[in-house]
Amino acid sequence: MKFLRFIKDHKIKSGYYDGKKVIELKDPIEKVLDSWENWKYLRNQLRTSHSVEDINFLPPVKTSKIICVGLNYTDHCKELDMDIPEEPKLFLKPPSSVIGHTDLIKYPKLSNEVDYEGELAIIIGKEGKNIEYGEIQEFISGYTILNDVTARDLQRKDEQWTRSKSFDTFCPIGPFIDTELDEKNQKITTKLNGEIKQESNTRNMIFSPHILVEYISSIMTLKPGDIIATGTPSGVGQMQKGDTVEIAIEDLGVLKNQIV
Amino acid sequence: MKFLRFIKDHKIKSGYYDGKKVIELKDPIEKVLDSWENWKYLRNQLRTSHSVEDINFLPPVKTSKIICVGLNYTDHCKELDMDIPEEPKLFLKPPSSVIGHTDLIKYPKLSNEVDYEGELAIIIGKEGKNIEYGEIQEFISGYTILNDVTARDLQRKDEQWTRSKSFDTFCPIGPFIDTELDEKNQKITTKLNGEIKQESNTRNMIFSPHILVEYISSIMTLKPGDIIATGTPSGVGQMQKGDTVEIAIEDLGVLKNQIV
Repeated sequence: MKFLRFIKDHKIKSGYYDGKKVIELKDPIEKVLDSWENWKYLRNQLRTSHSVEDINFLPPVKTSKIICVGLNYTDHCKELDMDIPEEPKLFLKPPSSVIGHTDLIKYPKLSNEVDYEGELAIIIGKEGKNIEYGEIQEFISGYTILNDVTARDLQRKDEQWTRSKSFDTFCPIGPFIDTELDEKNQKITTKLNGEIKQESNTRNMIFSPHILVEYISSIMTLKPGDIIATGTPSGVGQMQKGDTVEIAIEDLGVLKNQIV
Repeated sequence: MKFLRFIKDHKIKSGYYDGKKVIELKDPIEKVLDSWENWKYLRNQLRTSHSVEDINFLPPVKTSKIICVGLNYTDHCKELDMDIPEEPKLFLKPPSSVIGHTDLIKYPKLSNEVDYEGELAIIIGKEGKNIEYGEIQEFISGYTILNDVTARDLQRKDEQWTRSKSFDTFCPIGPFIDTELDEKNQKITTKLNGEIKQESNTRNMIFSPHILVEYISSIMTLKPGDIIATGTPSGVGQMQKGDTVEIAIEDLGVLKNQIV
């Protein structure tokens, strides 16, 4: 199921996407994600349907933290001429940087080099600490697409990556949470103005999503709505004002944003 | 005024500390912080009073992000033999790391070197982006004390500081939000098992709290409850299991936590 949050008639709503239309649901997304596997529950949730053109997408979850992983694709390490890391390299983006599908990425005055980074993102569904590898699945509510927008010039200048990754609008996510994605084998493609720039497969990750959840939960408590961005493949590059960036994950959909 | 959040009879409450007792207030802390300057409002809020021994302190605010500043005291730069930075060095701690006054700091298995870092922290009271220097005061609801607990061995090992600063319990804050603190001239002292380890004054900061708010708000939107940790003076050092760390800020109080 592909669930989403959206605005229609000035109200925040939840729904799912059936491949053609968005079917509105009664409960807020958190409740829906907890309960959708109960068939009777979902049937009683159904409301009217909308065309995707008639809604404004919101980030699919509200999050208390966004944990990102650097250098998690072998091809990206090679491109940067860096060793394959022995442990996941973690950094955080603030919740204030999050925007939704079709929202505008704002080019900050402080930077002259703003890059896209297409990524698969894990959405946590249940609070957990020290989660064991075999039990990971029950703590994940699904997957979405994330653009880890980065001011590359500031990243090179600063020792810590925080400033370069934390500007408002630097974390587009969406459009959906896919609760049934086969995360081990998904083609991931980033297009800039229609031209393919990144092309890889999630099977090229160094640390799989389940290993990342196990590792991160050994450090910090994960909470429902928390997002883990699993790293970007090779082919990162600059965006200019006016450009449109589209990140496609095979069975998940396309996250599209323009930079202004 | 020194406001706080606490638990009494299994309920989350707000109140203020008059130097001897905690006077319970009706509204939640967010409402109180917004409205306390109205004398009639506050008079109608008054409930019963409690001895500080009879309550459990909570972190004084709920936060969506904790922005920390590295190397912000001249003496700490000297101690680490590092140049005085030209711009504030930012990093983030996750909300899941926050604990309150008298809560226990848990020594993580992954580290063998866990340090205290006593700091003055700014509490944001009003949402703002690109806040101008002259208007900063209206965006600050007050100040508190923060211990930026750090796994120093992991900080040296990792390029990014995220892992070493993000363990659960690594961000004690409290006990109070002081809404009338003269933040420009406060003695700050850290004691380990009663012995003075850090001793400085907030006037030794390289970037003042108001400059930090201006700088950070040029990057990201600040929201009510957000915390800015203003950096630690010289004298950082290790804690062992069983140790008690007390951070005192002259007119603010003492934040005390034990490590286990």
